[in-house]
Amino acid sequence: VTGAAERQIRLTLHYDGGGYSGWQVQPGARTVQAELEAVLERLVGAPVRAVAAGRTDTGVHAVGQVVSVGVPARWRAGELRRALNALLPADVWVKDVVEVGADFHARFSAIARGYVYRVGLVDACASPFRRRYCWLLPMTAGGPRLNATLLDDAAARLRGRHSFAAFAKAGQEERGDECTVLRSEWSRWAAGVQYVIVADRFLHHMVRYVVGTVVDVARGRRPAEDVVALLERRSDVTTSPPAPARGLYLARVYYDERDLNRAERIDEDLP
Amino acid sequence: VTGAAERQIRLTLHYDGGGYSGWQVQPGARTVQAELEAVLERLVGAPVRAVAAGRTDTGVHAVGQVVSVGVPARWRAGELRRALNALLPADVWVKDVVEVGADFHARFSAIARGYVYRVGLVDACASPFRRRYCWLLPMTAGGPRLNATLLDDAAARLRGRHSFAAFAKAGQEERGDECTVLRSEWSRWAAGVQYVIVADRFLHHMVRYVVGTVVDVARGRRPAEDVVALLERRSDVTTSPPAPARGLYLARVYYDERDLNRAERIDEDLP
Repeated sequence: VTGAAERQIRLTLHYDGGGYSGWQVQPGARTVQAELEAVLERLVGAPVRAVAAGRTDTGVHAVGQVVSVGVPARWRAGELRRALNALLPADVWVKDVVEVGADFHARFSAIARGYVYRVGLVDACASPFRRRYCWLLPMTAGGPRLNATLLDDAAARLRGRHSFAAFAKAGQEERGDECTVLRSEWSRWAAGVQYVIVADRFLHHMVRYVVGTVVDVARGRRPAEDVVALLERRSDVTTSPPAPARGLYLARVYYDERDLNRAERIDEDLP
Repeated sequence: VTGAAERQIRLTLHYDGGGYSGWQVQPGARTVQAELEAVLERLVGAPVRAVAAGRTDTGVHAVGQVVSVGVPARWRAGELRRALNALLPADVWVKDVVEVGADFHARFSAIARGYVYRVGLVDACASPFRRRYCWLLPMTAGGPRLNATLLDDAAARLRGRHSFAAFAKAGQEERGDECTVLRSEWSRWAAGVQYVIVADRFLHHMVRYVVGTVVDVARGRRPAEDVVALLERRSDVTTSPPAPARGLYLARVYYDERDLNRAERIDEDLP
C-alpha cells in the first residue's frame, strides 16, 4: 500500500483448534486467521494478509502450521515473534519465525504436508487433559480392540499415488483428486494409536475419512477390501463417517525435498 | 436426613485446575467441590457432602483426587459414575467409582498422598497444548539449565521425617509441621523434568515451595546447603517463591500400605 520496503516472514504456529471455526476468515466466526491478522494489524498499523499452508477445518489442531506474512521492514523476525506471542490469545502460539525471500508463499511453495491423527484406546482419554485432543473409541468390555495388522495393511495400501475422491467431501476439487502419499503408518502414543500421513496434497476432510474408514476396518465393522475398493472408486462402496476433528493435527509442512526424505518424527509437539 | 439406607462411594477424580479456585467451596468462587456437589444434589434430590482427600489450591490439577460421598442406596456406583460424567463440566471427570464401607473417609482414611510437579525446559512448553500444564522456566541462550545432580541431591535430602514449616505458608498448621517423605525424586517427562513426592501429609503450598527452592538451587541461584538449612529451620534462610500452581498435580492418594510400598509410576495420567 505504502510502497515501503517489506519483509517476508514465515511463521510456524501451534494452535488448539477446539475454540476455532478453522483457519480461514469467515464472517461471524472465530478463526485463527482472523485472530492473527487482527494482532498483526495492531502491531503494524495496516492490514496484513496471512497465508497458511493448510486451511485447517473447524476443531482441527496445529503443531506446525506455516503462515507467510509481509510486514514493514522495521519489524525484525524475532521482535515480531515476541510481540505476537504477547498479544495473541492463549490458544495460538508462534513457535518459530524466519525471514524468507519475497517469493516464498506458505501454500504454493509447499511440496508436502504431514498430519497426525490420534485415536484414544484407554478410558483416561475422556479425562479433561485428553478429551479434546483425541478420538476416544467407545469402550466395550475389555476396551476397544483394534487389529494392528489390519491397521498396518490399510496404511500400506494407501501409500503411493491414488485417487482419493472417495475419501473427500464431494465436489470441491478443481485440481483433480490424485494425491501422492509418501508416508502412511500407524504407531503407538501414550494412550492409544496414531496415524501419520504425509502427502503432496490433501483433499477436503481426507485424513478424517481415511481414519474413520480404516478404524472401522480394524475394529471389524467392515471388510479390509473396502479400502482398495474406495481407492478404485467402486460406486458400491462408501467411506465410514469422518473421524472427529479433535484428533487431527497439522504437524508439518515441507518446503524442501531433504526434509521430506528424512522421515523424522512429526508428533513431538503433540499434547 | 431421611434415614434411608446410604451407600458410601469413593470417587477418583481428574480435573484441570486452571478454571477453578481450588477444591473447597468458597462463596462467589468456582470450585470443584461446589460443581460436584451441585451435580450430586441434582441427581440425588438432596444435598450431598463431598469430602476430598486433598484440598487442592487454586489452579492445581488432579489426576487422582479421591472423594467420598454418601448417596441413597438406590444409586449404584457404576450408574453414579455415568450420570456424573454426563453432567459434570468438561474439566472434571470421574475416572473411577467403588462402593466402600460406611467408615471410609477420603481424608481421614488416607495414609499418604502423592504429587507430581512438572517443569518445562523446552520452548514448546509455551504452546497452547502445554502452557497451562507445567512451569516453563524462562529461556536463556541455549535454554534453561538445571543441574541434575543438584536436583537429585536435594530430593534425597528431603526424604524421611522433617519439619517442613519453612516450606509452608506460615501459621496454619495445628497438627504440627512434621511430615514423613516416602518418595522424593526427579525424573524426565517429554518436555522437561518432573518431581514426584509422596508423604504422609503435606503442609499448605509445601510442594510448590519445595520445587521453587530446589529449582533455584539447580539453576545456580542459591546454594545447595539452603535446603538443609530450611529443614533445620535456620532463621536466616527463607524459601524461594512457590512454583506456579499450573505445574502441580495431585496424583495419588494411598489408603493401603501395600499400594504405598509398590512405588509405581504415578504420572501416567498426566497430560
